[in-house]
Amino acid sequence: MRMKNYWRVALTIGAVVTITVVLAGQTAKPAQAPAGNGTLLDDLVVANRILSNENILDGLGHISVRSLTNPNHFFQSRDLAPGLVTAADILEYDLDGTPVNPKGPASVRERFIHGAIYKARPNVKSVVHSHMPSVLPFTDVTTPLRPMYHMAAFLVPGVPLFEIRNVQGHVGMLVDDNTSADALAKTLGDKTVALMRGHGAAIVGLSIPDAVSNAIFLDVNARVQSQAVALGGNIHYLTQADLAPPTPNQQPSALPGSQGYYPRSWPIWKAKAMGK
Amino acid sequence: MRMKNYWRVALTIGAVVTITVVLAGQTAKPAQAPAGNGTLLDDLVVANRILSNENILDGLGHISVRSLTNPNHFFQSRDLAPGLVTAADILEYDLDGTPVNPKGPASVRERFIHGAIYKARPNVKSVVHSHMPSVLPFTDVTTPLRPMYHMAAFLVPGVPLFEIRNVQGHVGMLVDDNTSADALAKTLGDKTVALMRGHGAAIVGLSIPDAVSNAIFLDVNARVQSQAVALGGNIHYLTQADLAPPTPNQQPSALPGSQGYYPRSWPIWKAKAMGK
Amino acid sequence: MRMKNYWRVALTIGAVVTITVVLAGQTAKPAQAPAGNGTLLDDLVVANRILSNENILDGLGHISVRSLTNPNHFFQSRDLAPGLVTAADILEYDLDGTPVNPKGPASVRERFIHGAIYKARPNVKSVVHSHMPSVLPFTDVTTPLRPMYHMAAFLVPGVPLFEIRNVQGHVGMLVDDNTSADALAKTLGDKTVALMRGHGAAIVGLSIPDAVSNAIFLDVNARVQSQAVALGGNIHYLTQADLAPPTPNQQPSALPGSQGYYPRSWPIWKAKAMGK
Amino acid sequence: MRMKNYWRVALTIGAVVTITVVLAGQTAKPAQAPAGNGTLLDDLVVANRILSNENILDGLGHISVRSLTNPNHFFQSRDLAPGLVTAADILEYDLDGTPVNPKGPASVRERFIHGAIYKARPNVKSVVHSHMPSVLPFTDVTTPLRPMYHMAAFLVPGVPLFEIRNVQGHVGMLVDDNTSADALAKTLGDKTVALMRGHGAAIVGLSIPDAVSNAIFLDVNARVQSQAVALGGNIHYLTQADLAPPTPNQQPSALPGSQGYYPRSWPIWKAKAMGK
Repeated sequence: MRMKNYWRVALTIGAVVTITVVLAGQTAKPAQAPAGNGTLLDDLVVANRILSNENILDGLGHISVRSLTNPNHFFQSRDLAPGLVTAADILEYDLDGTPVNPKGPASVRERFIHGAIYKARPNVKSVVHSHMPSVLPFTDVTTPLRPMYHMAAFLVPGVPLFEIRNVQGHVGMLVDDNTSADALAKTLGDKTVALMRGHGAAIVGLSIPDAVSNAIFLDVNARVQSQAVALGGNIHYLTQADLAPPTPNQQPSALPGSQGYYPRSWPIWKAKAMGK
Repeated sequence: MRMKNYWRVALTIGAVVTITVVLAGQTAKPAQAPAGNGTLLDDLVVANRILSNENILDGLGHISVRSLTNPNHFFQSRDLAPGLVTAADILEYDLDGTPVNPKGPASVRERFIHGAIYKARPNVKSVVHSHMPSVLPFTDVTTPLRPMYHMAAFLVPGVPLFEIRNVQGHVGMLVDDNTSADALAKTLGDKTVALMRGHGAAIVGLSIPDAVSNAIFLDVNARVQSQAVALGGNIHYLTQADLAPPTPNQQPSALPGSQGYYPRSWPIWKAKAMGK
Repeated sequence: MRMKNYWRVALTIGAVVTITVVLAGQTAKPAQAPAGNGTLLDDLVVANRILSNENILDGLGHISVRSLTNPNHFFQSRDLAPGLVTAADILEYDLDGTPVNPKGPASVRERFIHGAIYKARPNVKSVVHSHMPSVLPFTDVTTPLRPMYHMAAFLVPGVPLFEIRNVQGHVGMLVDDNTSADALAKTLGDKTVALMRGHGAAIVGLSIPDAVSNAIFLDVNARVQSQAVALGGNIHYLTQADLAPPTPNQQPSALPGSQGYYPRSWPIWKAKAMGK
Repeated sequence: MRMKNYWRVALTIGAVVTITVVLAGQTAKPAQAPAGNGTLLDDLVVANRILSNENILDGLGHISVRSLTNPNHFFQSRDLAPGLVTAADILEYDLDGTPVNPKGPASVRERFIHGAIYKARPNVKSVVHSHMPSVLPFTDVTTPLRPMYHMAAFLVPGVPLFEIRNVQGHVGMLVDDNTSADALAKTLGDKTVALMRGHGAAIVGLSIPDAVSNAIFLDVNARVQSQAVALGGNIHYLTQADLAPPTPNQQPSALPGSQGYYPRSWPIWKAKAMGK
């Protein structure tokens, strides 16, 4: 009898720990993805975690994706650090940045950046806004950001600089309304990256992994260019003459200079960010 | 019988391991917070861990918070590396740096920095003292530290430099008495950051998260400015013209240039520092 | 009876968790190493993980090894991020980059780099191709990469720069055929490292650990040289006069300047990469 | 019966996993410390792990400690990466670098550095030899390494540079005999740090934690100075006038400029290196 009781205690403890471990291993229950958007929201969660883990986003910054079923809507996390985003935190917006659910949680103040770019660029499916420290110096100096290696070939067509002071009547540094966001989208034009003076960058892609890839290699490129400038002398930047057209193995891309290598990098970025 | 004994051994080992794992998961029992200070001491512990994890503080440096119930008292860890601080390590001081409990453990030698600033600045609720490597170069050169992006807008009013050699009769580099601490507080004036020549910085905030946020974005800003200087040419620093008044969504702030975005960043800083 | 059922549930959960943990701990079943190649493929897997963990390779780049049994064949991972490579992902190629198994998974587009170097350099047993950010600036500037300390003595004979634009008729930056790969091998000559303009580097070794070691110390050296240049003034580079012949304790080496210290470093690189 | 067998399997698996976990948690059995040296060897193991974890040592470099019982002997790890050292790997040497146990495992080739400094400097109790990347640039340029902040005050008396080419008849860059080691000790003189051209540094301390502390703050100082130089303009280095004599709270120190703050930093360095 004493022995049986002993087992009861030991097994109870064991079962409790077991169940706790099992539960702890579960991620937050994903919200029901709007019909037809398949794994898009799951990818958006992973993208938030990747950009946080790769130090492209800190507690601030954001990534969004255009809806697959309604090109006039996009998805973005509520006002939350990207490293903490789960599927339950994703909100749906129209291109003016108005949430579909008016009773939802607080939205990111600069969500207008995303809507304005989706409006102006039908082929853009995902947008990143970042304050990455490697790129910030280039937003404050006259040295233009230029492509240093083939993974940043999307910079070959140029990197425009957005000056929010030129938006008439705007107060402060934040792109927090449609007027300033439309001005940013106009500055971006048909490019992949726009710098924002004293603020950061807006980066676009043809898909979530494409935008993530562009953001990550933009970061590498900025650090490489800073080091090259410090070495002194002339720098041999990539030019249009260095670019090959996309091959059949690559993802289709309508963005100038896009190389579309992300299918190989995405799994390791994801594994590192999600703890495999 | 042999089988029963086998189970007994297996289950005993299992239970011991289980209990050990459970116990190891517990954090140190927090000390009883002085009446009326609520979760303030818990936040101070988290702030110590965040500043250590974000490499703002190494084994040295410290953060304090003004008492909620007695504005002439403040709380700070005993002489301990910030990354190891628990609630049991927090001591209470008057503004002259005298510990309320004369029989407590050894105090930080530079606690006078904190008391002197609380004396001179009634609206300051939290103070950080750091030797962060990104900021140290600016304490030794003539290039002033200036704001590079909106998250460091608290630098717009200027960053004074404290020279301890100017404190008459003082020996050494440490601000280890009230005379030198009062001189530092006077140099700080109404600003958010004072550099300390050949030593580090003092950073203030309207709350613990505000001071932590200012310290972290000061670090980013210093690295960004260093890179911008290395790129050469003119630098476009933030000025008063770039600042918007705080909006209703933001935390109230009486510090010049404070943007008060910390409510979004604090949870991810905490999750990273505390292992979620 | 109730008790027995209870045990059944508790033990079932326990067993399931236990088995899950055990299975999760297993690495992917290594593919059968071709007869005579012993632990070579295991070392190649470890080398992939080390180069990823040490940030020599990101999601891209690759390492290969010459077959021990057929010097006209080499082994390399399929098109996969190095940090995810297991033994099951290793493919065998002839020196023209043709996979032995025509029905295998997709190959790396730049595998030709490896085959061409094995063709031109009989003593080379392992090749690394990397885009490491520390080295990239040196591929775009006129400042030559030079040896800063004894661990990078393999740079003493010089570091040639490959310009793919000089490969007649070639389009784009990728070394994705035998013509451009042969041109790269010719540029490399008898050296240990060739820089590739706007792209990265090819690094060779007398064994897998030797190539890994050369890649890692190349990275350190590039960062050290960048800092030395930024300090200004003349730099005292290593020259032939600084080199001692290999001692009996060292690995045999026919590469100029090779120091062969990797037997000491490999175990800690491996422990860090594989989680001990 | 079937049920009993099921339990047997489940419990056997559980017990095996449990025991494996328990065994994996044990560190290697420490070797018996020579009589009278107390916890010295344990501290030496921790110091190896700290210097590896803080990136002062990579797979190479080493730290030693003078014997407490025989000042003409010292302890140092066998030829092993510092991050893997356990107490079982520590060997005892006389000051000529001859191992007490002639049948022990292979020794570090540059152990002579340690013996020669212990011979020349009776007050030195611990020696570090490092190739830290932050310091390497200063071994190759004419810009002297100088103290930037109070934690590197041990640099105030100056940092001599050792040129191994001046050791008559010596071949190569390694300090691998007593002649070259004595020359290095002579260059070091009564200072705390000697730079070694194209190689690294030798750093001394009055105890293991003191030497570790000096190595770690030397690293910070080198990075800070590099950034300060890049900012341009005059730099205000620390001078003798900035130094206070050690206070009663500090460790006794006979090294010029030593501040002896390590008692506060050691526990966090240890916690990070040993996984708490």
